[in-house]
Amino acid sequence: MTERSCLAIVLAAGEGTRMRSATPKVLHPIANRPMIAHVLETARQSGVGRRAVVVGHGAERVREAVSQIDAAVELCEQTERRGTAHAVLAAASAVTPDLHDIVILYGDVPLVRPETVGRLRAALADGADLVVLGFEAADPTGYGRLILEQDRLVAIREEKDATAAERAIRLCNSGMMAVRADRLLPLLSRIGNDNAKGEFYLTDAIEIAHAEGLSVVVETADETEVTGVNDRVQLAAAEAVFQQHMRTALMALGVSMQVPESVVLSADTQIGQDSVIEPYVVFGPGVSVGEGAHVRAFSHLEGTQVDSGAVVGPYARIRPGSRIGPGARVGNFVELKNATLGEGAKVNHLTYVGDAGIGSRANIGAGTITCNYDGMRKHRTEIGEGAFIGSNSALVAPVSIGDQAYVGTGSVITEDVPAGSLAIARERQVTKPDRSPLAAKKPTG
Amino acid sequence: MTERSCLAIVLAAGEGTRMRSATPKVLHPIANRPMIAHVLETARQSGVGRRAVVVGHGAERVREAVSQIDAAVELCEQTERRGTAHAVLAAASAVTPDLHDIVILYGDVPLVRPETVGRLRAALADGADLVVLGFEAADPTGYGRLILEQDRLVAIREEKDATAAERAIRLCNSGMMAVRADRLLPLLSRIGNDNAKGEFYLTDAIEIAHAEGLSVVVETADETEVTGVNDRVQLAAAEAVFQQHMRTALMALGVSMQVPESVVLSADTQIGQDSVIEPYVVFGPGVSVGEGAHVRAFSHLEGTQVDSGAVVGPYARIRPGSRIGPGARVGNFVELKNATLGEGAKVNHLTYVGDAGIGSRANIGAGTITCNYDGMRKHRTEIGEGAFIGSNSALVAPVSIGDQAYVGTGSVITEDVPAGSLAIARERQVTKPDRSPLAAKKPTG
Amino acid sequence: MTERSCLAIVLAAGEGTRMRSATPKVLHPIANRPMIAHVLETARQSGVGRRAVVVGHGAERVREAVSQIDAAVELCEQTERRGTAHAVLAAASAVTPDLHDIVILYGDVPLVRPETVGRLRAALADGADLVVLGFEAADPTGYGRLILEQDRLVAIREEKDATAAERAIRLCNSGMMAVRADRLLPLLSRIGNDNAKGEFYLTDAIEIAHAEGLSVVVETADETEVTGVNDRVQLAAAEAVFQQHMRTALMALGVSMQVPESVVLSADTQIGQDSVIEPYVVFGPGVSVGEGAHVRAFSHLEGTQVDSGAVVGPYARIRPGSRIGPGARVGNFVELKNATLGEGAKVNHLTYVGDAGIGSRANIGAGTITCNYDGMRKHRTEIGEGAFIGSNSALVAPVSIGDQAYVGTGSVITEDVPAGSLAIARERQVTKPDRSPLAAKKPTG
Repeated sequence: MTERSCLAIVLAAGEGTRMRSATPKVLHPIANRPMIAHVLETARQSGVGRRAVVVGHGAERVREAVSQIDAAVELCEQTERRGTAHAVLAAASAVTPDLHDIVILYGDVPLVRPETVGRLRAALADGADLVVLGFEAADPTGYGRLILEQDRLVAIREEKDATAAERAIRLCNSGMMAVRADRLLPLLSRIGNDNAKGEFYLTDAIEIAHAEGLSVVVETADETEVTGVNDRVQLAAAEAVFQQHMRTALMALGVSMQVPESVVLSADTQIGQDSVIEPYVVFGPGVSVGEGAHVRAFSHLEGTQVDSGAVVGPYARIRPGSRIGPGARVGNFVELKNATLGEGAKVNHLTYVGDAGIGSRANIGAGTITCNYDGMRKHRTEIGEGAFIGSNSALVAPVSIGDQAYVGTGSVITEDVPAGSLAIARERQVTKPDRSPLAAKKPTG
Repeated sequence: MTERSCLAIVLAAGEGTRMRSATPKVLHPIANRPMIAHVLETARQSGVGRRAVVVGHGAERVREAVSQIDAAVELCEQTERRGTAHAVLAAASAVTPDLHDIVILYGDVPLVRPETVGRLRAALADGADLVVLGFEAADPTGYGRLILEQDRLVAIREEKDATAAERAIRLCNSGMMAVRADRLLPLLSRIGNDNAKGEFYLTDAIEIAHAEGLSVVVETADETEVTGVNDRVQLAAAEAVFQQHMRTALMALGVSMQVPESVVLSADTQIGQDSVIEPYVVFGPGVSVGEGAHVRAFSHLEGTQVDSGAVVGPYARIRPGSRIGPGARVGNFVELKNATLGEGAKVNHLTYVGDAGIGSRANIGAGTITCNYDGMRKHRTEIGEGAFIGSNSALVAPVSIGDQAYVGTGSVITEDVPAGSLAIARERQVTKPDRSPLAAKKPTG
Repeated sequence: MTERSCLAIVLAAGEGTRMRSATPKVLHPIANRPMIAHVLETARQSGVGRRAVVVGHGAERVREAVSQIDAAVELCEQTERRGTAHAVLAAASAVTPDLHDIVILYGDVPLVRPETVGRLRAALADGADLVVLGFEAADPTGYGRLILEQDRLVAIREEKDATAAERAIRLCNSGMMAVRADRLLPLLSRIGNDNAKGEFYLTDAIEIAHAEGLSVVVETADETEVTGVNDRVQLAAAEAVFQQHMRTALMALGVSMQVPESVVLSADTQIGQDSVIEPYVVFGPGVSVGEGAHVRAFSHLEGTQVDSGAVVGPYARIRPGSRIGPGARVGNFVELKNATLGEGAKVNHLTYVGDAGIGSRANIGAGTITCNYDGMRKHRTEIGEGAFIGSNSALVAPVSIGDQAYVGTGSVITEDVPAGSLAIARERQVTKPDRSPLAAKKPTG
């Protein structure tokens, strides 16, 4: 099968009015990845060598986004919306003579799995000319029914044209299909638009192919896998299905989640065996967690590597560009941004560490702020191994604290502190007996 | 229909023992609004001109709460608990001769919708004397069954009195009804209390009305809409139904929620199109979010207006009296209370801003505290446009920072800073080489 | 029944490969308590006087954990894994002649309830020799079916050996059973290992007992109660069932939870009547909340007593060893660790209080840090009644602040402050007109 060259044509030209959004529908995200990126990734994972995307509504934004997702994608534009067959025709230039197979996917049907695309391709390899992906609908109302005769698909019957017997059929059309490349354009050329909307429907290809004596067969997938997204409720439903699959896969790999449905993952989240993810953890894009790490409740991570044995949270907010070294600890109400923590370093309470490197076993006291922004530019802070930063200190970047150096509580550090040095920057305490402004107040108890 | 004058009588006298609460049952909240307020709002929205509430258990607290919810409500007291008919009679004084219609609702049946009340009223306008609201029960056990003959309701049969055939009926009595005003008191006067508990039951009115040849009909609603709340498990179940409806309505309007079921709304929450609400956001009462705003994970908002394009959170806690201007940003571990942020202002990290106004494009550094309370009184802080407050600063109110002014890191500001000025209040750094108290310690690595 | 002496034998020797964990299966937690601790607690609560645990895989860690859970447990080791009957035999030494009854439970079937164990024991007291705990399986595939003849259990038929008629039986074997102590060892001695795996199966005891004319009966439980945990998905499912039971029980006692399914409890969490638990609260082990307290959203509590009328959160993180006095308040982004708050004390914003005692009605300003760690040792902070700590202060422990004392904003306090005194430790403000470094920048608006 992998011997056969294949092109995926992904239709992504629809307007998506029901999304009620200024953002083109196929760019709405599932697990922090645009829907169309899921479809392209599925095609790639199933070994489809070339991918073309048909853009239309919001073409500019979709083009730009798709190029960033996968620079190899061929972009085609459907300038008018005249039906699905017309949309596929917009990609005709991509249908080169060397191609064996074509798979037709949809930018707003994001959950289709690589295994399923693989089965469509396998059916072509086994001799079919055209393979339609069907599904058993829990409630078939509104879907096109697949009319089979001796395992051959003879037609797709729209609801309004169906007889009572045909309406009882629960096997429905997902819209996705695969077709031998040399069959595609001839079939498309024969599809007419003699219908209520005057559009060219891809589904008409089935009856034409059958009439020509081609081999038209059906593969099936689970309904959740082929469900399209037309509004934000359906988007959230697809998100839930995707999240549930990812969580189950992670648990099978040996990740513990006390309340799995409270853990929100990104499509690219990686977590190692025997790591524990507590309730209410949100993984943004680009997070990798090693083995035996512990992400505590109410943590939020993006663009971060958490090494083995590290403990993060509760209430840790780790922003992109960060790395938490082996056995390091990031505690509550701590924000890291573009910050590296060495092995066993500790940043436990109410701290902001931005644009900074913290050495192994250094201890950053509660309430410490790295002042990386002076109102005009950003600067870096470097803290050496085993250094101790007293609580409520401010480190005014650019600044460097040496190994084993010690910064006194409440200091504003503006100059570098050499290794092994003590630095302090605070006023002495003055105590005035009997001068509390509260003394005049009566105790309220 | 709107021509017909209408009074809603809301029964709210029951004790609610199963709530196990010192708070009267009808004051327990759904979406941060007392149950009875939902019922009164429904009556108002369906165009019912007058509302009367029958109080009893916890009368004092219910009276006070209802007066605050809607000062126009007429309050009646049922001094003894002698059944539903007896409770309605307590509102007899409100049944004035000019009234056309009466709707009977319940303070502990909070999810009934305005459309449903409207259908009850429409049936009266169409000539019925009495309309009972029924529902198809998934499990009718324990409910009174509606006994129909040719679309007319002839009786409500209690479970214990029902024949086997009657028990098979799934159409049940919700308790809610509408009645022509001139029929109400004559019907009530004929209800007796010859039953096990010696109480006067409103349901007996149906058989009496039928026997008198009145037109008694049924309207129906979904079971979730008519379910009563008798304990905290049912309260939580009603909350879940209400939340789900609100979320779906917001998504239909073009609000994105990655994990809708993790967003907790208040009954009055408003959110504009193309705004994104991340997982784990709690909206307390009085929050309005503009279009294209972004509320990030783990945020908690109350009494706040978030303008278009503003970004809030993650981990932002916005308390009442606040307004986040267009494009402004409130970041992690930031608390605002009675604070106004101008367009594009930034308060990004670990900050408390209370009783303060912050000008456009001002930047408040990490760890800043507005010290609005001196142990005796609260005071205000004003920060000008484009001002920069260095990290870990404390602004001791009352104090004013001018436009484009700059406060150095770690300062305690006690005096006003004029526009364009630099203010600083901190000690110089002293560094003592080789005096780190850690120097004696061996590196542990 | 309580007159009869009873031993529970808990099988906990299995490897649990499908957990994919370095931690022995029975030590994985549900509601922060190891599974085996749930089983031992159930046995104890049902009045079982003696408990024996059969360890095997990971014996060392299981022994140690069980000893900490309940020092009275007798530990037996199964050195080879040769089937369930062989495992029970490993506890033969615990079967002393004075015993009446034996209950056989499983370390990885954690949800069995004390009432259910009680019913097994009652059946023995009523004359049965052997009682098997069965359940009606929603899908019996893969379970052993219970073959009954006139209310007597005659055999347990494994799936592969079952006839079509037997496969239709939905009453299945949970594995749990109770047996008269004098019958156990004779029955075990007759079980052979003439089967595919060459193992000794406890289920074979049923047919043997029946053949000997003993009275073998069945008690039943709900399927959720007898479900075993073999992988992390099943662990999470058991957690969900346990949490749901606990939440429902708390609501029945008069605890309000707006979104119950968002509250994560520990097995030992206690909450008093009319307390309110907002959404997204995580209770770690050892938390007790009084009556009428209020735990606000996004709070995380461990090892803490919250007294009546106290308000905690939102975003409060309370660590072990803490006590929040009556009516005291702990606000957002506040961490307490080993800290005591007197009646009505307030710690409302962005504060770390560790190893400290805070007097009644004291007010700790925003951004305050108790510096309990100097890089080498931990020290205590004591704050008197009615004291006021200005915002952004650091209290360097060991240190003591007297009653009604007042600490100025932004101070670093290193020396004790006597009662009624004012202490301050900060530099004076210097303001330089027209010297803002921003003055050169053009306003960007």
